[in-house]
Amino acid sequence: MALEAKQATSQASVSESNRSRILQHLYHHGISSRAQIAKALDLTPAAITKITARLIEAGVIEETGDIEGSKNRRSIGLELDTTRFHIIGVKFARSLVQIGVFDLCGNALSLETLPTVYDNTIDDTVVVIHQRLTQLLAEDKSIVAIGMAVPGPYLRNEGRTAVVSSMQGWRKINFINEFASAFGVPLFIEQDARAGALAHYLFDPAVHTSDNLAYYLVGEGVGLGVIENGRLINGYLGAATEIGHISVDVNGRPCDCGNIGCLERYCSTPAIHDMLIDDGVLVPGAADMTHTDAARALFRKAQEGDEQAIAMVRSIARYVGYGCVTIFNGFNPKHIIIGDIVSEAGPMFLEEVLSTVEERSIPEIYNTTSITLSTLSADAAVSGAAAVAVTQFLEHPSVFFDVS
Amino acid sequence: MALEAKQATSQASVSESNRSRILQHLYHHGISSRAQIAKALDLTPAAITKITARLIEAGVIEETGDIEGSKNRRSIGLELDTTRFHIIGVKFARSLVQIGVFDLCGNALSLETLPTVYDNTIDDTVVVIHQRLTQLLAEDKSIVAIGMAVPGPYLRNEGRTAVVSSMQGWRKINFINEFASAFGVPLFIEQDARAGALAHYLFDPAVHTSDNLAYYLVGEGVGLGVIENGRLINGYLGAATEIGHISVDVNGRPCDCGNIGCLERYCSTPAIHDMLIDDGVLVPGAADMTHTDAARALFRKAQEGDEQAIAMVRSIARYVGYGCVTIFNGFNPKHIIIGDIVSEAGPMFLEEVLSTVEERSIPEIYNTTSITLSTLSADAAVSGAAAVAVTQFLEHPSVFFDVS
Repeated sequence: MALEAKQATSQASVSESNRSRILQHLYHHGISSRAQIAKALDLTPAAITKITARLIEAGVIEETGDIEGSKNRRSIGLELDTTRFHIIGVKFARSLVQIGVFDLCGNALSLETLPTVYDNTIDDTVVVIHQRLTQLLAEDKSIVAIGMAVPGPYLRNEGRTAVVSSMQGWRKINFINEFASAFGVPLFIEQDARAGALAHYLFDPAVHTSDNLAYYLVGEGVGLGVIENGRLINGYLGAATEIGHISVDVNGRPCDCGNIGCLERYCSTPAIHDMLIDDGVLVPGAADMTHTDAARALFRKAQEGDEQAIAMVRSIARYVGYGCVTIFNGFNPKHIIIGDIVSEAGPMFLEEVLSTVEERSIPEIYNTTSITLSTLSADAAVSGAAAVAVTQFLEHPSVFFDVS
Repeated sequence: MALEAKQATSQASVSESNRSRILQHLYHHGISSRAQIAKALDLTPAAITKITARLIEAGVIEETGDIEGSKNRRSIGLELDTTRFHIIGVKFARSLVQIGVFDLCGNALSLETLPTVYDNTIDDTVVVIHQRLTQLLAEDKSIVAIGMAVPGPYLRNEGRTAVVSSMQGWRKINFINEFASAFGVPLFIEQDARAGALAHYLFDPAVHTSDNLAYYLVGEGVGLGVIENGRLINGYLGAATEIGHISVDVNGRPCDCGNIGCLERYCSTPAIHDMLIDDGVLVPGAADMTHTDAARALFRKAQEGDEQAIAMVRSIARYVGYGCVTIFNGFNPKHIIIGDIVSEAGPMFLEEVLSTVEERSIPEIYNTTSITLSTLSADAAVSGAAAVAVTQFLEHPSVFFDVS
């Protein structure tokens, strides 16, 4: 086997590949003439004419009015109208399930959060998800696909998660059996942080031109998705980049996964919640709150200037920073984007993350890596669930339309 | 940008890609007829005839006698004689430099170790390397390339290592400026453990069909090379998969890289050497030995049954095991191959590594991942240095021969 991706060789896959490249060109560059596409992709005008004719016939792209071509000649524009096709994104966290409808550029048309999930209401939640998705599909005929983001480690061939710290009940759900063929449109499942990385890759103007980026999810779980040299790192079973279960202290706190000192045990919202319950004073009534509400109460108190709350946020941020140092040494991305609930702790949190990283990393790497908080309008994992499906739409159009 | 590797598009790159695919087919499958190659690669007979004619003319491949074709028809065989071309591999560790000459299948034709390097003899060592390589090239005209394996983190565009724990002097060497154009043959430089991963990918019959493998180098440094889905993970600057600088204890031992609790501080030969010097009794005279000799003295004592030595080897093995758990959660390879000096500690060492990993990892991952000691005849990083060049030879034949 070569070290480079095997080239598409059969005629069918060559056609699909060229079709995909044309769609991607229109997606990323907007309205373009056939001549511009031919030049950019090094394809013959004849091939462009043939493929775009089929894409127009199938209703995927359309002709616009004249646009300015080279040497001031006018030519007809082609457009992939990214608002015409809609995608459902579903994010599963432990206790949080969110469902959004997005256009192909990740703009949210609707977004809802289902009632808080408990270990004994997982089955009910699954029923509600079926109902809501069926209903959304009936209401909006522009929906062409569903993407789902699930907590890792997600065993992609088996269709289930290998560990869900603090809510083992999700492990019994086989996502493939439960959802993959349940609806009239193609459905794709991805580990949540990997979906978040795709969301930034496709939808975030600040980084989407970068082939090396990481989305660092710090919420009910701690996860990571890495795009390295333009491709997601998956690992053999899909269980790579599980930063939440990398130990930062081999003599530290035990974790449900069997490991000791997992990063997730120090900075996820369940870990924060535990610390607040142990503390007993800082957030009164913490024991009766959800993980998210307890963490948010702490962040609010810190933002109001409470010194003990600030100290706790800074100590959490140091662990998030240790995770960034591990990401530097493990994956050396150009951008780390931190998202999910813990990133709501704001500027003081990011400041402490950065100073921790500066202190503990190799200067050459620190100086060439950006670390920022996610600024996508919807949560990166839920828009990322949509991004998973958008990626498939752009790469394998024949799965969605009769274009051959 | 697409998530899939951009397809070769210009005619020249298509030809080079097909040439490379034919060479790789012959490399991996041995003598084959034109018809067999055409079928395997889905290329037209005309393309095969044209490309192989040029490869024969340039002396890269040759025709053999008749071989048995399909339907018992005889046809002419084509062969890439892997013993006809030689490659020099150079391994730089901190104090160890090895130079080997290999054939294209990684069989060592010669192997030498230079005198132990000290911080103040680095410049002399560089001079000696120039002399030896020049001499080897003069003596053996079959040598077509040189590969070099250097300690990571190696900043591949800059040509230098960012940290070399325990021998900072190597940092001042710019490997690209020093060596890249110094000889009459192409020269390639790679991080040492990544070179080791390539050695196993190309030369190790036990794993070379796997697209997901990791070489875990535990010697003067601790390094990792990961082939994920058929491609090396490099990171933005080439500083990814630096397992030696991933912390296993954020409150632990400080490291030269700025981080605290780096794995390298617990199981590299310099770390073992420090422990033996502190101990003072277990290996008498350890202070006057090289790192390697001190570590080997400990392993010998443990193999002879000394209980204190056994306990120290087991404690080192546990840290190597913690590293494997990090590799599971970070990269989820199918195979982890442990190599370099510390792997000489043998079966008792491997046993403790495995039991540590079983204890601390997710069962689904433990049960689907093999962890073995390297069994390549030469050290994986020095044969890996050659593998780096072999990979280039197979992927970019036009760099080596006039075949266009």
